[in-house]
Amino acid sequence: MNPQFGTVVIVGVGLLGGSLGLALKQRGLANLVRGVGRRKEVLDTALALKAIDEGTLDLGGAMKGADLVVLCTPAAQVPSQLDVVRTRIAPHVVVTDVASTKAEICARVRTNWSEPYRFVGSHPMAGSEKYGPEHATATLYEGCITLVEPRNNHADDAYEKVVSLWAAVGARVVEIPADLHDGIVAKTSHIPHIIAALVAEQAANAGDVKHLVGKGFRDVTRIAEGRAEIWRDICLTNRNAIAKGLREFGAQLNAVREMIEHGEADDLDRFFQAAQAARRKVLDE
Amino acid sequence: MNPQFGTVVIVGVGLLGGSLGLALKQRGLANLVRGVGRRKEVLDTALALKAIDEGTLDLGGAMKGADLVVLCTPAAQVPSQLDVVRTRIAPHVVVTDVASTKAEICARVRTNWSEPYRFVGSHPMAGSEKYGPEHATATLYEGCITLVEPRNNHADDAYEKVVSLWAAVGARVVEIPADLHDGIVAKTSHIPHIIAALVAEQAANAGDVKHLVGKGFRDVTRIAEGRAEIWRDICLTNRNAIAKGLREFGAQLNAVREMIEHGEADDLDRFFQAAQAARRKVLDE
Repeated sequence: MNPQFGTVVIVGVGLLGGSLGLALKQRGLANLVRGVGRRKEVLDTALALKAIDEGTLDLGGAMKGADLVVLCTPAAQVPSQLDVVRTRIAPHVVVTDVASTKAEICARVRTNWSEPYRFVGSHPMAGSEKYGPEHATATLYEGCITLVEPRNNHADDAYEKVVSLWAAVGARVVEIPADLHDGIVAKTSHIPHIIAALVAEQAANAGDVKHLVGKGFRDVTRIAEGRAEIWRDICLTNRNAIAKGLREFGAQLNAVREMIEHGEADDLDRFFQAAQAARRKVLDE
Repeated sequence: MNPQFGTVVIVGVGLLGGSLGLALKQRGLANLVRGVGRRKEVLDTALALKAIDEGTLDLGGAMKGADLVVLCTPAAQVPSQLDVVRTRIAPHVVVTDVASTKAEICARVRTNWSEPYRFVGSHPMAGSEKYGPEHATATLYEGCITLVEPRNNHADDAYEKVVSLWAAVGARVVEIPADLHDGIVAKTSHIPHIIAALVAEQAANAGDVKHLVGKGFRDVTRIAEGRAEIWRDICLTNRNAIAKGLREFGAQLNAVREMIEHGEADDLDRFFQAAQAARRKVLDE
């Protein structure tokens, strides 16, 4: 088939879905990009920005003629949408998603879908504090790490199509099992977001602090601008890993507080030096 | 006197001291900029970058011929350096500093100096994750909020000179009492830094996470690259406010963890929405 991905249905045309539509259309990778939304205004914006060729509010009906379906909705909506999609697609259709949590979604497919699976879970790490189709760009996925569940009772052609989708829009695919994914991303993404939100709230409650903030506060809290619904759903669909990580975080916070209360200069020096090394290790710098 | 600030002695020629030297020299505001350091290599770098006209390792000796002295060293060094400076300066000399904590420093002056005070505490909120004279720029202070203690038994000419120094290099001066300063900045700067360090460490301990981080982690942890010595000293010189704030932070962290454990979707939604509003309030956006 050429263009490579035929009729692509993008469910949810916000930042991630809209950017995928733009990338597919600008790179000539799809015959047709159909957007599915919950609100007509958002679909109209995506249409006006040429992120989609047509839009509909009807998820089931949108499956007609589809070749590839990409769910770009908040994580908690994905399992029930997958149930609708599963009963409405033709046998050759391939399905993926972009949610930031993977264990619950992949488990749902293992429970309700039959082998070989034509759904392959994905997570492009392209989120931002911005959201909505008005912030979509055709370049969002370029160089973006995209985590994909390893091949495991998937249909070969479906697995390959999902990997080639992300490669085709410029992303770098990294395989990682869903459970491991959720445990690690809790600590590299979900907890940092919750922490940023708490920092913003504490500062706001300190009084009239308008002139008393520097660049550091701005950077630390930037992701607290993210869409509440997305982060709520991430918390709800990755409860155990996040709650466990927050307990550990609280224990480390108390340890540092005690260093400060006891004036332990050497321990504080080591703590801040270790944090610098830790950041460089994580970012591979 | 013209150039305005005569012979300026900058103690500590890192990012803040070096940038002040560059700004004074490029704007023609000083007859001579003398740098004082603990290590000859750092002074040589500052000289090579033309951030200072001459350098010395001798703090007391550097006071000879000085008109204005600016201490740009980590907060815990400032009180003892002030004791040296006080006994070596001519009667007309004006002294200020740039430390991120003010209560301990201003209290030391009130204990050891005689009225009217010729030291006026300052805190330009121009810090960064970068440090050392090699990162200094003549524009660092342009548009930078600089907190200055309110006039309170200061010599009029000394107070006015310090305010005009910051204005002359492009900063926006905001007056705030030292105790209030430390309490608020604990929440807008010091605690965010400690939190960023904890986020970096938790992620690094999650295993091989190199491919599993996005822009959010990078932003949240950027300030964890800051110089350990500076942040250690901030913790040591603002113990009570930081420890109290960390206790409050821990309590809020537990509250959010419980929302997640109990799957309280509405509470989580409100939490993330409130954080977004809080950030905008603090940044006045």
